[in-house]
Order: sequence, then C-alpha cells, then structure tokens
Amino acid sequence: MINVALFGLGRIGQMHGENLHAHKRFKLKYTFDINKNLSRQISKKFNSIPIENPIVAFQDKNIDIIFIASSTPTHINLINEATKYKKVVFCEKPLDLDIKKVNICKKRIKKFNPKIQLGFNRRYDPGHNSIKKDLKKGIIGTLEKIIITSRDPAPPPINYLKVSGGIFKDMMIHDFDLVRFYLQNDEVESIYSIGSNISDKRFNKIKDYELASCVLESKKGVQCIITNSRHCSFGYDQRVELFGSKGMLISGNKNENESQTFTKKNTSQKKPLLNFFIDRYEDAYRLQLDELASYTLKRKHPVSSFEDGRRALIIANAALESLKKKRQIKIKF
Amino acid sequence: MINVALFGLGRIGQMHGENLHAHKRFKLKYTFDINKNLSRQISKKFNSIPIENPIVAFQDKNIDIIFIASSTPTHINLINEATKYKKVVFCEKPLDLDIKKVNICKKRIKKFNPKIQLGFNRRYDPGHNSIKKDLKKGIIGTLEKIIITSRDPAPPPINYLKVSGGIFKDMMIHDFDLVRFYLQNDEVESIYSIGSNISDKRFNKIKDYELASCVLESKKGVQCIITNSRHCSFGYDQRVELFGSKGMLISGNKNENESQTFTKKNTSQKKPLLNFFIDRYEDAYRLQLDELASYTLKRKHPVSSFEDGRRALIIANAALESLKKKRQIKIKF
Amino acid sequence: MINVALFGLGRIGQMHGENLHAHKRFKLKYTFDINKNLSRQISKKFNSIPIENPIVAFQDKNIDIIFIASSTPTHINLINEATKYKKVVFCEKPLDLDIKKVNICKKRIKKFNPKIQLGFNRRYDPGHNSIKKDLKKGIIGTLEKIIITSRDPAPPPINYLKVSGGIFKDMMIHDFDLVRFYLQNDEVESIYSIGSNISDKRFNKIKDYELASCVLESKKGVQCIITNSRHCSFGYDQRVELFGSKGMLISGNKNENESQTFTKKNTSQKKPLLNFFIDRYEDAYRLQLDELASYTLKRKHPVSSFEDGRRALIIANAALESLKKKRQIKIKF
Amino acid sequence: MINVALFGLGRIGQMHGENLHAHKRFKLKYTFDINKNLSRQISKKFNSIPIENPIVAFQDKNIDIIFIASSTPTHINLINEATKYKKVVFCEKPLDLDIKKVNICKKRIKKFNPKIQLGFNRRYDPGHNSIKKDLKKGIIGTLEKIIITSRDPAPPPINYLKVSGGIFKDMMIHDFDLVRFYLQNDEVESIYSIGSNISDKRFNKIKDYELASCVLESKKGVQCIITNSRHCSFGYDQRVELFGSKGMLISGNKNENESQTFTKKNTSQKKPLLNFFIDRYEDAYRLQLDELASYTLKRKHPVSSFEDGRRALIIANAALESLKKKRQIKIKF
Repeated sequence: MINVALFGLGRIGQMHGENLHAHKRFKLKYTFDINKNLSRQISKKFNSIPIENPIVAFQDKNIDIIFIASSTPTHINLINEATKYKKVVFCEKPLDLDIKKVNICKKRIKKFNPKIQLGFNRRYDPGHNSIKKDLKKGIIGTLEKIIITSRDPAPPPINYLKVSGGIFKDMMIHDFDLVRFYLQNDEVESIYSIGSNISDKRFNKIKDYELASCVLESKKGVQCIITNSRHCSFGYDQRVELFGSKGMLISGNKNENESQTFTKKNTSQKKPLLNFFIDRYEDAYRLQLDELASYTLKRKHPVSSFEDGRRALIIANAALESLKKKRQIKIKF
Repeated sequence: MINVALFGLGRIGQMHGENLHAHKRFKLKYTFDINKNLSRQISKKFNSIPIENPIVAFQDKNIDIIFIASSTPTHINLINEATKYKKVVFCEKPLDLDIKKVNICKKRIKKFNPKIQLGFNRRYDPGHNSIKKDLKKGIIGTLEKIIITSRDPAPPPINYLKVSGGIFKDMMIHDFDLVRFYLQNDEVESIYSIGSNISDKRFNKIKDYELASCVLESKKGVQCIITNSRHCSFGYDQRVELFGSKGMLISGNKNENESQTFTKKNTSQKKPLLNFFIDRYEDAYRLQLDELASYTLKRKHPVSSFEDGRRALIIANAALESLKKKRQIKIKF
Repeated sequence: MINVALFGLGRIGQMHGENLHAHKRFKLKYTFDINKNLSRQISKKFNSIPIENPIVAFQDKNIDIIFIASSTPTHINLINEATKYKKVVFCEKPLDLDIKKVNICKKRIKKFNPKIQLGFNRRYDPGHNSIKKDLKKGIIGTLEKIIITSRDPAPPPINYLKVSGGIFKDMMIHDFDLVRFYLQNDEVESIYSIGSNISDKRFNKIKDYELASCVLESKKGVQCIITNSRHCSFGYDQRVELFGSKGMLISGNKNENESQTFTKKNTSQKKPLLNFFIDRYEDAYRLQLDELASYTLKRKHPVSSFEDGRRALIIANAALESLKKKRQIKIKF
Repeated sequence: MINVALFGLGRIGQMHGENLHAHKRFKLKYTFDINKNLSRQISKKFNSIPIENPIVAFQDKNIDIIFIASSTPTHINLINEATKYKKVVFCEKPLDLDIKKVNICKKRIKKFNPKIQLGFNRRYDPGHNSIKKDLKKGIIGTLEKIIITSRDPAPPPINYLKVSGGIFKDMMIHDFDLVRFYLQNDEVESIYSIGSNISDKRFNKIKDYELASCVLESKKGVQCIITNSRHCSFGYDQRVELFGSKGMLISGNKNENESQTFTKKNTSQKKPLLNFFIDRYEDAYRLQLDELASYTLKRKHPVSSFEDGRRALIIANAALESLKKKRQIKIKF
C-alpha cells in the first residue's frame, strides 16, 4: 500500500479523499485542513488520522505521497517542504497565481530531483486520451488545428471569483495545458485573447470575464482556438477537436444517459450534459490516481508535471497581457 | 426524348408529372384523368395534350411509355392494353388488390415479353441503396436480420382507407418488397403477423389496423421484422437495419435540416423528420425516373419488376391470413 | 451495516462481491462456493469469512441478506432455505429452468411473506429507467410498441450453452422481463417466436439458436418485438425503443468513450460499444445494490420480484412452444 | 416571367444558368461569356441568346435582371452599367478585391437607388437560416458567441489562387458575412487573425495561407471565431455554432446519405460529407433565386446587399492587416 497524507478538505479535497479511500493501492493515512472540526469529521469517514500540523506527515517515514488539494496560495510552500522530505507530490492546479514564486520554487527544489504530479485532470479523461492516441497513430496525418470548447454550467460564488486569479489562470489554464498535451514535439509560441461580459455584469466589478476566447499558434504553425464561458445552460460543455491533414478527431460531451426523445416538435433529443467536473471527469479522476500509483512506484515521468503547471501559468499570464495590449504576445518559457 | 403518356392525375400522379416534365430525357406528351377538368388544367402546366380516351396514347406509335398512376383497380387493364401495344409500362404499387387478377394478367402478357417497371420507390432511395451496396460488398458478412420501421405521419382519409385493401396491401407492401430487395439469392419463406388499434378506434369499424408487426423468415434463415404504424407524431419514420455476421448497416431518417438545439432541458435536439413520402423520397422518385429512362432504352431487367409486385402482394395476403389464423403461414409464389 | 452472505463466486458472483465490498451500506460477511480453494482465495480479497456449509450463514442471526449468484439449479433450494430463516433474498436470474419447481417454491414460501429481489439488472439501468420515467410522465402519450434489441458480443462456451436452457430461458428472459417492466397496468397476452442458425452451426447440434426473434402482444394491444443474437461484431448491442401516440423514446447503446473520427472514407465514426454486461450495466449493478439496501430496510415491494422471475420464465416457455408449433401461444400466468 | 441576362459561364455561372433555366419564374434570355465558343455552346442548353456585347442586354427593355457571375475584376463595371440602365443586379461575391473601387462605385450608383442582391449563398441555407430564426425567437437568450468552421475539400488550382485575393477575401469573406448575418442590431468592431501553412507549402510561394483563424468582437461583446482550411479530407466541412445565455444552436454538416455502418473497429460511421458547395448548398442556391424573384418583384431590401458585400470586404482587409501587424485591428465601415 502507498501511504498518503491529504492536505485540504474542501470540495475537491473531499472528492480526492473518497477516491483515495476507495482505491486499492492507496492508504489514506493522514488528513489535514485548517478547519479542525471539518478535519476531524472527514477523517472518520476515511478512517484516517486528522493531523493539526503538516509536519507530522512530512516527518513520518512511511508517508509516500503528499497530496495537495488545499487553497492555491498554500501550494508552493507545501511543495517546498514535501520535496525536502523526499516525498512524492500530487498538487492540484494551479501551482500558484504568481509565476515568480513558481520560478523560485522550481530552482529551489531542483536539487531534490522531485517527483511531482500536477492535477491537470483532463489529461486522464478516456475521451481526450483516446484522440491523443489516435493522433499519435497518424490517423489524421499532421496536426493542424486544436479547437477546445470549455463552458462551466454556472459561475462559482463571487467571493471565490475575487481571489481566483481570473478566467485565464483559474479556468482556461486547463485548456492551455490541454493544447500543450496535444502538441507533439512542438510548443505554444504566441497568443491573442479577448474577454467580455454580456449576461452577468458582476464580472465587470471584479475586473474579470465571463466569456473569453484565445487563438494560440505553435512553433510548427498549429492554430489553437480556445473558447470559455463561465455559464452554460445545458451543462458542462467539454469538447476537443483535432484537425489534421488526413482527418479530424473529436472528443465529445457526455450526457446523463443515452436516451433520446422524439416528439412533435423535436427529434433525437438527448438529456442535458453531465453537470460538472466531478461527474464529467469521474473516470479521469480515478485514472489520475492509477497514474499516481504507477508514477510513485515505477514511472520516471508523470503524465502531467510541475513544468506543465508552470508553462500553463506562463500562457495564462500572456493571455491577460494580450487582452490588455490588444495584440499578439510571444510566449517565453 | 422518350415520349410518355401519364394516366392518373391525383396527388401521386401530379408528382410524377412534375418530375417527368422537369426530366431531361422525357417528353410528357399525353395526360389522362377521369376528371376531365382536372386533366385539362394540369395539362397546361406540363405542356401536354389532355386526352379523353386512353386509346389515343396506345395507338400513337411515338409513345414509348405508358405511365400508370391511376387508381389501383385500373392498373391491370391498363397493363394488359399497354403491353399489347408493345409499350414500356411504369405502374404504381400495388398491381391490384386481388392476386387472382394479377396471376391471370401475368399469363396473358407473357407472350409480349413486356417491359414493366413497378413503382416501389424505396428501392431507389440513396440511403436504402447505399446499405444494399455495402451489404453486397460484404461489409457486414453474411446477412442475418432485416429490421424495417415504417410509420406514416398521419392516416389517410377514412374513405381512402375503406378501399385501400388494408394496412398490409396498402402500406406494408412497400416493406415486404424492401425485405425481398435485401435478400440475396434467397426468398421469403414464412410470415407471422399481428395488428391492433389503440389510439384511433375508427380502424376497428373498417376492420383494418393502425398498428401492425410481422416476422418473416427466409429460406436461408434470415429473420425479418417489419413494424408499421399509420400515425407518427414526429414525422415520416423510415428506417432499415441490416444485421450480419460481421456488422450492421442502418439507413436512417432524414430531418428537415441539420440544425441542433441545446437548452436547459434537452441537448442535441434535431428538427422533426421530413413529413411524408413526397419530401422523404424526393431523391428516390427522381432516381426512379432515371432508372426508367435507362430501362426503356437499354436495361433488360428493371430494378423493380411486375414479378416483384406480384410477390409482395402474395406476402401481404399471407400476412392477413396469419393474423386471422394466429399462426405462421408458409409463402408460395 | 447490512450483513450479506454471498453464494457463488463465478464471474457474476465475483462482480457482485466486488460491488458489495465497495458499497458503503453492505458488509460482505460470508462467501461460499463449491470450489473451496476459490472460496478461500476470493474471501481474502473481500475480507470475508469463507464458509464450507451454507447453514452457517442461515443460522447466523446477524446475516440480513442471502445473495444467490450460484449456478441456476441451486437457486430454488437456497431460496427455500433462506426464506425459512427469514432472510432477505437476492437471486440472480433465472429462478430455475423448470417452471414446476418455481411454482412449488412459490406456494411453499408464501407463508413466510418473504422479501426476494430478482437479478433483472436492466431494470436498474439509468437509460432504460429514464425512458420508463418519461413514459410515465406521458411524454409519448399512450404506449403502442416496445422494440428491444439485445445482442451479445460472442456466444458463451459450448459447455455452458448445453446446460443454459436455450436462448429464450438464458438470454431473452431479460427482454421478456423488460417488456413487462414497460407495460403499465397491462400484461403480456400472446407470443410468437422464431429461431435460426446461420453463421455458427454448433447451435444446431445442441438444438439451440444463435438468432431468435419474438413478437408479443399485450392485453391492451401493445405490440412488442424482441430480437436477439448470440454474437455481435461491434460489441454488446442493447437498445430499447418505446413508441406511443405522441412520440418515441429510445434508450441507446453506450460506447467506449465519446470520441469520433472523420477520415476520407467515413465520418462521425464512434468507438465500438462497451463490450459486455459487466461494463455496459456497471451503473445498473451498482444501483441494483442501492435498491437492495433500500428494499432490505424500508421498501415493501422490490423493483424486480420473485413473481417477475416466474412470469419471465413462463413467457420463455411459451416462446419455445411457439417455435415448435409455429403458431401464436396464449400466455397464462 | 422575369427576364435575365447572365454574364459569365464558368463553373459557378453554368450552375446559376441551370438553376435559372429550371426556375419557373425566370426566363434566361441572354448569356454572355468572353469565350464565344463556350457562350454559343451553353446557350443551346439553356435555350438562350448568346450575345457578344453586354450592351445588347442593357439596352433591351424587357431584361429585368443582370446576373453577374463573371470574373471578379469585371463586377464593378457591370454593376455601374446595369444600375445606370435601371436593371436589378445579382452579383457573385466578392464585389471586388479593391475596397476603393467598391467605395467609388457605392457613391456613383447611389443616385439610381439600385436593387442589388449579393451572392452570399450561405444566408439562404435552410440549416443556417433555421438557427437564425431560432435565435430571433429567443430560444438561446442573448447571443454571446458565434463559431464558424469552414473547410474546403481541396484547394483550387494554383493559377486561381494567385489572383484570388488570398484566403480572407476569397474564402473567409463568406464567414465574415455570416458573422454579420447572425449579429442582431450589432456590428463587428475588431478582428485578430493568424495564417499558416503546414501540409501544402505551395501557399508560401504565393504568400497566401492554407490555414487561417480569426477572432472578431462585436460592439456588444459577442465573441466570433472563424476557422478556415483550404483542404479537408472528409469533405466540405461547414458548421455554425451560436452560443447564448440560455442555450446553443448548431447548424451541422450534410452527409451523402443517412446511412451508418457498424463494424468490429468502429460504430455509427457515416458517409463522407457532401463534397463541395454545389452539392452542399444546392438548396441555398435554389432559395437564393426564389429570393431574387421576390426581391425583383416586391421586396425592398435584399437578404444580402451591396453594403453587405462592401462590409465583408472591409473585414477581410482588416484580417490581412491584423495578420501582418500581429495585433487587433479596429473595423471602420
């Protein structure tokens, strides 16, 4: 069994906790949250030891993995500590909102040659993965375009939005990473972005955007389009389209079930899409843990690395700069 | 140009008239209907000569084709005359409601070695044809099942229903023919059928059925299922499924257009199906005429023959017998 | 926690064992199999006590549920014993191959007023359930037709087939039950069936069928069509179509994932279907256990009952009789 | 009958000629082409008078419509002449490659208060139109995004490409117009574009692009994405997606027919898309003529106007400027 200490027991932390608890290869030994009551309560469910100081987990030689699902500002410090203690690290996205802190961390931890897996869940989605495999097989020839649609069913609470870092760092960062996931021996080179608010004017007040679109270009000339929305009446819209010289691959949406309705007015009606990431990416979260077990025990390189997290953040920063300067921004990693 | 005399100017006759008029290889020379006013009126549209006696067309040596779209009871007599005069015949389905009359006709016209094309329009449908081609190519291996769904958007007027010959001879006869169209070096051997009325009780009064289903078996053991309904709220439901040892082919429905709607309640909603046969089989009717031109000038065997019409009628009779006797009926052609 | 004793550790038994083990409300206390080595081995995985005599489970007052997944001939005896000991019973389908034994059992256990849930897994499938809910809501008006397609990816081993009871009792029994699941205040009244072998002649030797089709009629005139195949090159084909006076509902297939491929030759290609029942009905098996927990603790009537199992078997017998007599058979329950 | 003089008998001119010839409300009186032999030959097919000097058509008082399908550089002069003679004008896109010439023409013809219909065929497509109607009905609430995919099956000959004006003026101009078609009481405000060549390096030599993508923003903040490709292995890819506060509308592709294939490797395979514009927009071209008849006789405003042609050209110029300057360009009409 691989022993895990889980930090952060918010919505995403609890979900990871349940998956770790149910997983055959992990033993969820410690759980930590700044809310001690919550920590005690949740630990019963997972049969874990609630700790009040992270140091307990770091110093326990039986702990293999530090699993970071706490709030974004805590990530870098926990990575610094965990790598010092030679622990394998799983860290939720984003690494941090400040690229400087990430760069300092990168230098600092280098000497430990650390194992760090980033929480870019979409890289593990069976559909998104399936088209990557088909791309690699050459089914669509040379890759020419990547088109990603990502729409959340509803915006998070305004208090979360205020500290989220904005749509590019909080939401589209997943899509920046996904673009890089599909580029083969290639890298993002430039970006242009726009943002606007039409239906929900609260976003204006916090200087953020409910709607955003980006066009990126790779070194090889691959054209990448990302379109995001903070709301979507019909569910969690998650699509990827890869266009190449010999064909096209689409990773489509998942519906509540496979039923269809035919009536006087409409035919072939399907149910709404799965509502949000916990449902839509249920398989991805499970497969992410399989990968974490494999990475901890055998693999040298994670499917999603610290460097992937750093680069996605750099692109997000460039997106924001482009929006302000109304021009293309060259990306330097 | 191929010269045509069109008999019968009802709904289906007028449709054929328009197609013949627009077709590059046909000259619609004569039109005939028992309603003389209608005949005169329609003839102006088609720039044809309205005749009051069929004999004019039969005796005109320039007439190549006698095109029969008049009421069912007139078909056999017109075929008898037309073949006597060595004309090519196109005849709408069904040949007649009485198999005895058809059998007598078959014997009588044999000596003329006549060219007769039956109006089984579905044999010419691009979708239904496409799966026949793929079947022949062996894409699904050996054919094992044929499943046909056919539902009219709404029943015809009760006065038509009374003289229609019933659901098997009037409607399902198309599907009996379609089953035979897909059977290769094989033939229908037995049939079982049921009929019922649930929503529209008028059918009880005229001893007919709004709903009917049949199971047929071929000599080679191919299982054929046909399901019919005289009403369908979402349009004209026309589907064929061929199942084989190596795969499945489906010829699906056609929608008004290719748009889809996504809302809070439903996703991927398509428009209603094309309403009825004139829209749904628009291409088929056009291709049927191309075939008629080719058959008239070159081909020895029509895609849809007098014998096909006769056999479909024999199956329809067996369907009715099965329904009454509540048992399987062996088919003898 | 609800304490369970699991009988039978074959493929389906092990699957149930894993689901019971992972379920929050069940404690898998005992496991039994006639293969003692297997039993000991599997019990380690589930942290259960391997018993060598069923009586241990029956006599343990803490055991709430006798879970029967052993071979078909053992079902009735285990039900007799379990009900005597006032246990709740879960029993895999079919109850038995011999309706007489089932009828005797029915009478014998009546006095215990037993709680028995039958293993008709499809009743719990989210898609199949979703269309039942929509049917009840009246979305398609009055039900007129039920069309069920069920095709296994590949036949079971010949040794299993020999003792399976044949395609109607072993395979189509699921579909007979599903027809009854959708009929509302209505019941199956008659059946006609055919069977044939085209690709796999081994079935002839054991007097069974790789292909079978049935037409059933309900008391209200609902026409029900079932088509089965013991092989299907593209996966586990599981579809239900409900047609009514105001519309149609379809519960469709599930693919490996939601990706699509477009190439020179074909567009919108999807991946093969989920391979077989353990994958296709994964959710159904889980929901079946939720239902079992609820039934054990609260509900008076199971979604799938002993009587449902008995009636499905009566229909299967009638199907076989129809096939032999080549006529419609009236069903008497 | 509405009398028409058709100028230009290339591929698109001949297609219009056939449609005009078959249309019930038009009489194709004159045909003109600089290739006199072609003109004479084609005129026989259409039963039209081949003229060697356009003046014949302009001076014929019975001519209602000057139909311009000749090469782009001839458009403006023909419009100038035709409007002077008070003819209704149909003009293929683009008006011209030089916006200055278009602006001069605009001023010059103003005094004639001319009736001019532009050849933006997509505005008449049943699918594209259907989603515009649904948008107007408010089915998706407030419009927020327009996403257009347009991919030609194969690039035109290099000699055509050299004088085409480039991908923005020759191909994407259709999509710029389509964006404006869906914007309601709104207008395009800014554009950013990229272009690249990956598979077909010939485009580098002529300083053109096989791949191009644009992001446009409207005055109201609607985000519009267009992606074009000069090649597409699976046919003519033509999709429009409208996203709004309450839903999404998609106008999808059209396949050769509605058949599907299921095999061991793939399921639900459809046939390739309709190959190119003459097939894909067959209905649109026909409906365009219906509209032209209606506009000629009754309507005051065409569905697609001279000004629409002028504005699309301005956007195309801005796209090219953006690509060179690597920044957002503000649009001024």
